[in-house]
Amino acid sequence: MQSTELDVSEWFNTDTPLTLEGLKGRVVVLEAFQMLCPGCVLHGIPLAQSIQKIFPEEKVAVIGLHTVFEHHDAMTPVSLKAFLHEYRINFPVGVDKQGAGPLPNTMSRFGMRGTPSLVLLDQAGQIVAHHLGQVSELQLGSEIGGLLTRGAVSVKSGPVTVGQSEDTAGRCIV
Amino acid sequence: MQSTELDVSEWFNTDTPLTLEGLKGRVVVLEAFQMLCPGCVLHGIPLAQSIQKIFPEEKVAVIGLHTVFEHHDAMTPVSLKAFLHEYRINFPVGVDKQGAGPLPNTMSRFGMRGTPSLVLLDQAGQIVAHHLGQVSELQLGSEIGGLLTRGAVSVKSGPVTVGQSEDTAGRCIV
Amino acid sequence: MQSTELDVSEWFNTDTPLTLEGLKGRVVVLEAFQMLCPGCVLHGIPLAQSIQKIFPEEKVAVIGLHTVFEHHDAMTPVSLKAFLHEYRINFPVGVDKQGAGPLPNTMSRFGMRGTPSLVLLDQAGQIVAHHLGQVSELQLGSEIGGLLTRGAVSVKSGPVTVGQSEDTAGRCIV
Amino acid sequence: MQSTELDVSEWFNTDTPLTLEGLKGRVVVLEAFQMLCPGCVLHGIPLAQSIQKIFPEEKVAVIGLHTVFEHHDAMTPVSLKAFLHEYRINFPVGVDKQGAGPLPNTMSRFGMRGTPSLVLLDQAGQIVAHHLGQVSELQLGSEIGGLLTRGAVSVKSGPVTVGQSEDTAGRCIV
Repeated sequence: MQSTELDVSEWFNTDTPLTLEGLKGRVVVLEAFQMLCPGCVLHGIPLAQSIQKIFPEEKVAVIGLHTVFEHHDAMTPVSLKAFLHEYRINFPVGVDKQGAGPLPNTMSRFGMRGTPSLVLLDQAGQIVAHHLGQVSELQLGSEIGGLLTRGAVSVKSGPVTVGQSEDTAGRCIV
Repeated sequence: MQSTELDVSEWFNTDTPLTLEGLKGRVVVLEAFQMLCPGCVLHGIPLAQSIQKIFPEEKVAVIGLHTVFEHHDAMTPVSLKAFLHEYRINFPVGVDKQGAGPLPNTMSRFGMRGTPSLVLLDQAGQIVAHHLGQVSELQLGSEIGGLLTRGAVSVKSGPVTVGQSEDTAGRCIV
Repeated sequence: MQSTELDVSEWFNTDTPLTLEGLKGRVVVLEAFQMLCPGCVLHGIPLAQSIQKIFPEEKVAVIGLHTVFEHHDAMTPVSLKAFLHEYRINFPVGVDKQGAGPLPNTMSRFGMRGTPSLVLLDQAGQIVAHHLGQVSELQLGSEIGGLLTRGAVSVKSGPVTVGQSEDTAGRCIV
Repeated sequence: MQSTELDVSEWFNTDTPLTLEGLKGRVVVLEAFQMLCPGCVLHGIPLAQSIQKIFPEEKVAVIGLHTVFEHHDAMTPVSLKAFLHEYRINFPVGVDKQGAGPLPNTMSRFGMRGTPSLVLLDQAGQIVAHHLGQVSELQLGSEIGGLLTRGAVSVKSGPVTVGQSEDTAGRCIV
């Protein structure tokens, strides 16, 4: 099965472009956000920063994805760069490539329905959870802890069906 | 004594430009912020919105002032407009006019040292308090309540000395 | 007009019993609580402690009142004493005297409908506000600030009608 | 190896006394608290309630333990019963049996150094984590998720060394 890959036009906080393929072997937390989305600023970004603090980098990779689907002129890479600096975000952040429609490419591929969206991938690159809006830290911690243990005992992970549905226009969740 | 006046290049959420002179008769809360300043987003803006909700508009005017002193390319009026929409800010917001130096004009005139800064003016247009960073709601409420009562009993307010000092380069307070 | 007075069976954090009559000349914040009421522990007590910190003691007196109207065996003075110690409450706290009915005497006299209840009295001992449940700090600060200013300009305060209604059995507000 | 067992004088919220032996097969979260300990009320108890909400009861058992080591007269079972009612705590809670010394018996056996203390046991009844004070939900979620996954793939769990040290007098952590 072909895994879904990122489509990024520009990276911040990393010298080399990242791919999910290249991150295999680690759990990946993909935090999709828009810099002017209140729910992202209040919940999504702080959560990603906490994950980065709690889990060792070589086991859990935290990756930001700037999925602009509204106010495109207001959230350019120039503005994003200042945002990352002011909010002290130092994990790698990719700018999701704009496509033909209203949604950027990676957002479409993953079927994200708004921001913040958190996609959790296991060490084999398979999606195991997909959260829209505010997430319980206990719940998410449990999902990550499960993957770390499963990885530790060398269980082969298979694809997991996730409850994502129709590809609607994105919403910014407050 | 000549009161300090606003110097604004563009207004949002109001059809006619505002002046402190024109707001005389009402208590004025001037909330100076930068849209990418975390302390403004977490504390300053929500405080201004609470003031707007608690006090009647005809007695207390809440005015935002976008005092950009860093990352100028990242916080243009185009971005500000989207920010105001996303954070549901509907009180009038003026863009502080850029001057020759690093600080915009109104910020310099009022001796603001960073963002968020809250300047409280009485019904006669005199500055009665000047807060930098996070403010106690009890303290600020007390200051506003004092002005409303003083106004109600027709006491002539004189100028109040405020503890503002040297005009240093601005800081964004987290 | 006869002011309502406290009816207290035991005091903590003060060597001499307090009366509202004796507190005239100062604004009084009367914080009625039950030690096992979650809303009191989460909102009422911290608010009273903040008021104590923000306003000078000689102008604003913060007084606690333990108005037990349920679980009487569980909230005895012995338990209250430990509670005050653990929560570092050092303002004077009176135990509201139990009456014939379900509600203690002071609670009945003031028409309090549950806990936490905050009663604000002006420098003349008149009730000016009566809050049940969670209170806006801006609102309360404004009320206190108004009284302090009014006191400062020697305005004679008259009785204020407060929106308190039927004397129902008390509720513990979460 | 002999597992440490509870020593409880009275149970609430359960018709039959519980033992850790009897809970084998499930992950156990043992939340040790004192009803008048602010850190327990603000952090420990809400955390235990969140765990109860997030994880299925047949996989994760949440058990409260009232480990009174100070103010014994203030925190009797009568007061505890009202506390459980007011804070809507409906998981089983045992009263730790008082011993000869200052600390109750189970608290001593487990080497708990204060409240809140959270002890996490795996499905085999072995202690896998021991937290004093405020706990990261991500961290704790990860520990629980790891155990659930490990249990699911039938890995035999061995005893884990935990960083607990000298048996000092308990502290109530705020």
